[in-house]
Amino acid sequence: MKLFGYFRSSASYRVRIALNLKGLDYEQASIHLLRNGGEQFSEEYKQLNPESLVPALIDGADSVPMSQSLAMLEYIEESYPQTPLLPSNPHDRAYVRALALAIACDIHPVNNLRILKYLSGTLGVSDEQKNAWYLHWCAVGFAALEQRLANDPRRGLFCFGDRPGYADCVLIPQIFNAQRFNLDMSPYPTLMAINQRCLELPEFIAASPAKQADAE
Amino acid sequence: MKLFGYFRSSASYRVRIALNLKGLDYEQASIHLLRNGGEQFSEEYKQLNPESLVPALIDGADSVPMSQSLAMLEYIEESYPQTPLLPSNPHDRAYVRALALAIACDIHPVNNLRILKYLSGTLGVSDEQKNAWYLHWCAVGFAALEQRLANDPRRGLFCFGDRPGYADCVLIPQIFNAQRFNLDMSPYPTLMAINQRCLELPEFIAASPAKQADAE
Repeated sequence: MKLFGYFRSSASYRVRIALNLKGLDYEQASIHLLRNGGEQFSEEYKQLNPESLVPALIDGADSVPMSQSLAMLEYIEESYPQTPLLPSNPHDRAYVRALALAIACDIHPVNNLRILKYLSGTLGVSDEQKNAWYLHWCAVGFAALEQRLANDPRRGLFCFGDRPGYADCVLIPQIFNAQRFNLDMSPYPTLMAINQRCLELPEFIAASPAKQADAE
Repeated sequence: MKLFGYFRSSASYRVRIALNLKGLDYEQASIHLLRNGGEQFSEEYKQLNPESLVPALIDGADSVPMSQSLAMLEYIEESYPQTPLLPSNPHDRAYVRALALAIACDIHPVNNLRILKYLSGTLGVSDEQKNAWYLHWCAVGFAALEQRLANDPRRGLFCFGDRPGYADCVLIPQIFNAQRFNLDMSPYPTLMAINQRCLELPEFIAASPAKQADAE
């Protein structure tokens, strides 16, 4: 398996955690999102992913490259059933996927690099307003997640039960991202307790941006 | 089953299509996104979905409400295996999910109501700039999808093969949405051919915004 990503990309970080939780071996290739105007826009990378977004994943020499981190999580879960990332009950599966999608759809894409660039470049928004934008959508999303997780009896040491899984793969990179923007995390004690537990596990440590070969 | 949605919400529209393709009966309740400052912000609705986003889905009298339209699609697919929405091969499943996620993560959330409101309200962006924002992200996303679908041998009459499925449930509402904003769809002939085929099917017709009880 080969993962094309970037150390600081939270979507790449999600997939690294999932692969580590499954105990799978994988190679990595770095696609630098800033250098040379963004290596994700190169013709070579567009062959892997016409959307010019990281990550991309190849599993098997002749296989078609995959895109979209959540599609990769589902693929990994279906293809490598050891150490399940999702619970078995359909309602619980929907709940865990919804936690992940609340981050992957409603926090992350609104705040990723291309959006922030458009805000300052095309719309001429100030750095202060751009930061406020980032913090606003993170805070709105985290507040809803905190409410869900704090009140749901299915939460355990991790987002669902006492084993890390699908939702944790998505939550931890988003918290990392928010902390880079100095979001005050004190209103989200439940999220932060889960974060702390995850960051003590070798699978999460090995997946963290600082531990990647392309870390700066 | 009971779906809480809004006639024009594309996320609700996705779920209506999926339920119709499966031939499932469901009740609907309308959550008006504009009236009374947005009914999705009412305390009553927040009990169903603390994220204040539509849709929400309940399956079974005592069951916990579900959120996030793609989690619902997965739930519907797993719980009602008749008329599969996803192919069976893991690589194909990843491909189809990635098509859906490319819309659900990278086009739709960047352009939904709360974002457009923030652009004009908080950032004081002009209507012209707000429209340009919408059209830009739609065009970027559709261009990548067109490239994928036009070149992938797995495309048939629909996004994958000759039966409508998971990706079509997400594509058709996004095209509807783009057309409301007068996006020029001529650069996307493959998407438009799929759209036309879908809009001839009773499952898609019954799910369309104009056919809903709360249509205006």
